[in-house]
Amino acid sequence: MIAKPGEEAERPSTFADQVYGRILSSIATGAFPTGSKLPSEKLLGERFGVSRPVVRDALSRLQRDGLIESRKGSGSFVLSSPPEDLSAAADMAQIARYQRYQEFRLVVEGAAAALAAERRTSAQLARIVDAHNKFIAEIENGQFLWQSDREVHIAIAEAAGNEFFVESLEGPEVRLSDFMTVSLKLTSSRSPQRGSLVAREHSNIVDAIRGRDAVAARIAMEFHLVQARRRMLDKTLSP
Amino acid sequence: MIAKPGEEAERPSTFADQVYGRILSSIATGAFPTGSKLPSEKLLGERFGVSRPVVRDALSRLQRDGLIESRKGSGSFVLSSPPEDLSAAADMAQIARYQRYQEFRLVVEGAAAALAAERRTSAQLARIVDAHNKFIAEIENGQFLWQSDREVHIAIAEAAGNEFFVESLEGPEVRLSDFMTVSLKLTSSRSPQRGSLVAREHSNIVDAIRGRDAVAARIAMEFHLVQARRRMLDKTLSP
Amino acid sequence: MIAKPGEEAERPSTFADQVYGRILSSIATGAFPTGSKLPSEKLLGERFGVSRPVVRDALSRLQRDGLIESRKGSGSFVLSSPPEDLSAAADMAQIARYQRYQEFRLVVEGAAAALAAERRTSAQLARIVDAHNKFIAEIENGQFLWQSDREVHIAIAEAAGNEFFVESLEGPEVRLSDFMTVSLKLTSSRSPQRGSLVAREHSNIVDAIRGRDAVAARIAMEFHLVQARRRMLDKTLSP
Amino acid sequence: MIAKPGEEAERPSTFADQVYGRILSSIATGAFPTGSKLPSEKLLGERFGVSRPVVRDALSRLQRDGLIESRKGSGSFVLSSPPEDLSAAADMAQIARYQRYQEFRLVVEGAAAALAAERRTSAQLARIVDAHNKFIAEIENGQFLWQSDREVHIAIAEAAGNEFFVESLEGPEVRLSDFMTVSLKLTSSRSPQRGSLVAREHSNIVDAIRGRDAVAARIAMEFHLVQARRRMLDKTLSP
Repeated sequence: MIAKPGEEAERPSTFADQVYGRILSSIATGAFPTGSKLPSEKLLGERFGVSRPVVRDALSRLQRDGLIESRKGSGSFVLSSPPEDLSAAADMAQIARYQRYQEFRLVVEGAAAALAAERRTSAQLARIVDAHNKFIAEIENGQFLWQSDREVHIAIAEAAGNEFFVESLEGPEVRLSDFMTVSLKLTSSRSPQRGSLVAREHSNIVDAIRGRDAVAARIAMEFHLVQARRRMLDKTLSP
Repeated sequence: MIAKPGEEAERPSTFADQVYGRILSSIATGAFPTGSKLPSEKLLGERFGVSRPVVRDALSRLQRDGLIESRKGSGSFVLSSPPEDLSAAADMAQIARYQRYQEFRLVVEGAAAALAAERRTSAQLARIVDAHNKFIAEIENGQFLWQSDREVHIAIAEAAGNEFFVESLEGPEVRLSDFMTVSLKLTSSRSPQRGSLVAREHSNIVDAIRGRDAVAARIAMEFHLVQARRRMLDKTLSP
Repeated sequence: MIAKPGEEAERPSTFADQVYGRILSSIATGAFPTGSKLPSEKLLGERFGVSRPVVRDALSRLQRDGLIESRKGSGSFVLSSPPEDLSAAADMAQIARYQRYQEFRLVVEGAAAALAAERRTSAQLARIVDAHNKFIAEIENGQFLWQSDREVHIAIAEAAGNEFFVESLEGPEVRLSDFMTVSLKLTSSRSPQRGSLVAREHSNIVDAIRGRDAVAARIAMEFHLVQARRRMLDKTLSP
Repeated sequence: MIAKPGEEAERPSTFADQVYGRILSSIATGAFPTGSKLPSEKLLGERFGVSRPVVRDALSRLQRDGLIESRKGSGSFVLSSPPEDLSAAADMAQIARYQRYQEFRLVVEGAAAALAAERRTSAQLARIVDAHNKFIAEIENGQFLWQSDREVHIAIAEAAGNEFFVESLEGPEVRLSDFMTVSLKLTSSRSPQRGSLVAREHSNIVDAIRGRDAVAARIAMEFHLVQARRRMLDKTLSP
């Protein structure tokens, strides 16, 4: 039983996170195998001791993450299963929080990349390119260091010429670095090709900022972050 | 003389903020009257002891704020003058920082309003409506309290169901409240009608969130924040 | 009975348009008064001879238009009533099509306004300002001509420097002018103040394009079109 | 000499298209090799008989397309060279028009993909998936038919539930099919891997629409169209 009476309206996300984590876990272990139908909202609510809106919230996020599909009138079905090593890398309930952080980053870093394309000085471009090249060199050496990934993102946010974008990514409560540790641990443990995929996505962003194309820079950054969110949960993602 | 050698590449925004503040001040005092042509980038650079990119950055922000107009090949002209009480309400160099905070809020709160329209529970809508009604009641009583304005914005950000949006607005370094104090001090000292203008803009946002129209909610919020940014510097803004 | 067997999957919007128009009509005549609860989706489907997805589509558009509110688990309630002169000005089923055209315009004209702010030449700005001033002069003379409103919008779309934006607004099948006739007929018949409201919204767009502020230009245009959509159906809209 | 007196203000894009096409051609043939500095705006204006704003417009589009880089104070440099077969596939001056059509599509199809994710019926999803699978099957057989590519895009636009999106892509003056012929001719003639690249980008869009993730659907579509624009001109793009 997760919910306590009277608390639900206050912090609905917390309960939904736990429900999200439990269903995710059940899918990962095969208790809810690919293709199977999930129990009804009502039954899930009873099992986890939460109200139906909380269940619905968790299900709609699982759908957004590509793990289940809701069909009007017939219920929810498992579309794909997350990697088995997911639970080794992260507390399952933390995954929901990570996905929300990615949602926030998409908004902030997408806008920052567009501003960087418009306003970046030559010195700021040089710093972005340096960070990008360092990351590529490490990937080619078989390494995959979150510090270098972070450096690319921070250099871009700084080129936006607005300190609030950087501050929102690296405040004392929000830690880009914490989340990147989880993400890269997963990414690097899975396949060496994932590193080059990340580097290629970075290249698209850097090219657009170099070409002063604000629209392309925003899109390339948003695409990179959507893909990162999916890579977290998708074991079949090529390459 | 503002710039010190070697620092410029490090913190260009700081110098540009000061140049922005000084030109703004000269426009407010009438040293650069409406309709007049500003000195060239080269001369401004010499006067303030900064490089031309720094001057250019300050000028392009003054243009964005509707104070000057740059005409290709003929220089920059003063379009309108900020309210004279501006310097009483705020350190002139802080205005540039305030405007950047508004730029950041536009991105974060616009996205949060859209998510709130999609995800808000009935309880969250009720909290938004309560805060909105409280603000309206105060305006009708001739008051204009930043705490109540803030409450409306925070209630909306919370309804987005993603704690990172709220955290980015009210961290220990970023203070929605600090900036609102400046903004409302100016707004309230100017005309009682400005309060109702703000309340009407809030109504548009609340209506869209009630109607679950994510696009209209984002637009109404973004419009509100663009207008707030302009109200800060525009003495002629009706009503 | 609206739907014919087998056709529904092909052209769902047509049936939903008619259902939308009928419910709108019932609200306007007072058959479904403000505050009352609408019949269930099932009953509405039976009454109009359409499937529940078609009813659901119509209801969600009525909600987006601010006319009804759907409450999870308890049904849909009438929030406000459209102006009584609506049926005199337009075929009720056409209103749904008009609202969709506004949705399309929002996307196309919002993007065009942003591009116009970035790329407009002095000659293009002069044409926009001329059209804007002509419209204002007419409003002050108590006139309200859709041709002048259209001219402002076309001048902005042309300043985007991409002919496809203008073509998409004024093709042989899509007629900005047709829709504007309806919209302005309604607007002008209602109150003289509505004209000045439209002119003030145009001013926001023109100012942002003059100041080369792409973000503010997009937002001001989007806001104008969202408001126009609401003005169509909202009799209480001040002033 | 391109410009005729008095016409420039009327149709600036036409002259800029021709200047764009000529510079592009000079880069493709090696007359302006990679790494070289372009003649000044003034000299280019004299050579082509157009004014400097027209040259500037053409240069800024070449920069957006990743072919040149403008450095403040030192001029424009050739960054990369378009494929040599470009002139065989298309009239060089038409390329500029094609790129503008892609800019328009990005706006319209990005919004349509988001709406499709929100509103698509099961029947509409099935049609999208069918078109997508047909395209993949052809690619695997070594074919690459623009009709099948077009079918995927039209099926998505139709699922947006707003006929104006489809009409704007396939009106009598705007022809999605015309442009696709050029694009696919180039793509297919270059490398078989490009086909699978397009198919993979389509998969991202289809997955997001299936998962009802409007944000991811918009981004995946925008990313696909930005990449298509770059593929047109970039010979080094890895498959």
